Amino acid sequence: MNVKITVTYDGTDFCGWQIQPNGRSVQQILEEAVEKVTGEKVKITGSGRTDSGVHAMGQTASFRLEKNFPVERLYLALNAFLPPDVKVVASETAPDNFNACRSAKKKTYIYRFYKSKAELPLLERYAYRINPDVNTDKMREVAEVYKGEHDFKCFKASGSSALTTVRTIYDINIKENGIETTLSVTGNGFLYNMVRILAGTLLKAAEGKFGVDDALSSLSTGKRELCGTTLPAKGLCLYSVEYD
Amino acid sequence: MNVKITVTYDGTDFCGWQIQPNGRSVQQILEEAVEKVTGEKVKITGSGRTDSGVHAMGQTASFRLEKNFPVERLYLALNAFLPPDVKVVASETAPDNFNACRSAKKKTYIYRFYKSKAELPLLERYAYRINPDVNTDKMREVAEVYKGEHDFKCFKASGSSALTTVRTIYDINIKENGIETTLSVTGNGFLYNMVRILAGTLLKAAEGKFGVDDALSSLSTGKRELCGTTLPAKGLCLYSVEYD
Repeated sequence: MNVKITVTYDGTDFCGWQIQPNGRSVQQILEEAVEKVTGEKVKITGSGRTDSGVHAMGQTASFRLEKNFPVERLYLALNAFLPPDVKVVASETAPDNFNACRSAKKKTYIYRFYKSKAELPLLERYAYRINPDVNTDKMREVAEVYKGEHDFKCFKASGSSALTTVRTIYDINIKENGIETTLSVTGNGFLYNMVRILAGTLLKAAEGKFGVDDALSSLSTGKRELCGTTLPAKGLCLYSVEYD
Repeated sequence: MNVKITVTYDGTDFCGWQIQPNGRSVQQILEEAVEKVTGEKVKITGSGRTDSGVHAMGQTASFRLEKNFPVERLYLALNAFLPPDVKVVASETAPDNFNACRSAKKKTYIYRFYKSKAELPLLERYAYRINPDVNTDKMREVAEVYKGEHDFKCFKASGSSALTTVRTIYDINIKENGIETTLSVTGNGFLYNMVRILAGTLLKAAEGKFGVDDALSSLSTGKRELCGTTLPAKGLCLYSVEYD
């Protein structure tokens, strides 16, 4: 049987989603928990890899079990074997051709900022501190430029092995709540580090150093150096993955 | 000179505010930082003690310096010596008769809940998980009963040495945001564990096991056993302290 699970984790103490020879990965810890619960060694496919330090609220993954199992209660059994920083929030039977990576249609990532002159320990773990003087309203007009289908070569990290850099961004939302600013981006897929570079580029806009013309140039020239820096992993969270 | 500071901390790895012989306390770490920056050994007085595991967004404290110091920049210097889980967000000169504890007029505490069948690692650190089936709307009518000046003997933890149990609660607010419920309580002072017992009592109301009549009885009889349990420290945050 084919199983789909929805996973949430605090990425702080993980080397990322994917199994690494010398790291603590979410994938490995999940595979070990599935083996403890079902007795089967499985290979779990995530909707995509998340980097070291990146969090997830609704990462999805799939794997195959040889024997039958009451799947709707599997997540509770898995949680009994999982450490506090990774939990499964739902488990369900999936169609035979379902693959958490290949079947994914839309992903939403969130990047969190907070404005403060001093580090705030209660926000530092899941958000990136920015200068209170920046104007986060300026993020919106630049964000408009990046909506739609574009060649996002300008957001391609060095070393990325993507075959094509064309992606579609369906929506970019910027919400303010007191000192917190939340950037939410939905697309059909993202290049390696793309959301963290987009967040850095919108921060550059908020700092008054990057305007609509710069955004248009970045798309037409594909020049990474026009854009902002790659912001730290801790502010990023894979929020949800949608399927048909 | 008399100095007032505003302090924020993640209480997870602290034994609480107050210096303990064998614990890592916020007070001690602050006193050490003040000595490193100013060269003076001081005794720092907090607006009140917070327990082990309780967080603070706006704890206040005061202390005296013998020599002059540019106080408005003191917080930046202190932060350079403070660990990531405690930071000072403001420092200012205070009138000579100011005492962070005795001069305090109002305190606001926040208690955070989230509704989920599974533990959510991204929320667990600062909030208490409750059953998604409870009706948090029911918290509001019971909360109304506790507003105002009352003898809060029913919220007195065993072992509390308070001379009087009369306190005034100026406001209780319950806000919902998706799966998160935030209880905010403002009063002229609180008994030991009082907010955590109030939070447990409102949770009992949300579970349909405690109504307005029970709340009235708890106040008139002073019986602790009528109320809810003392909820865990991690959901509690000292949000702000007000002065004249």
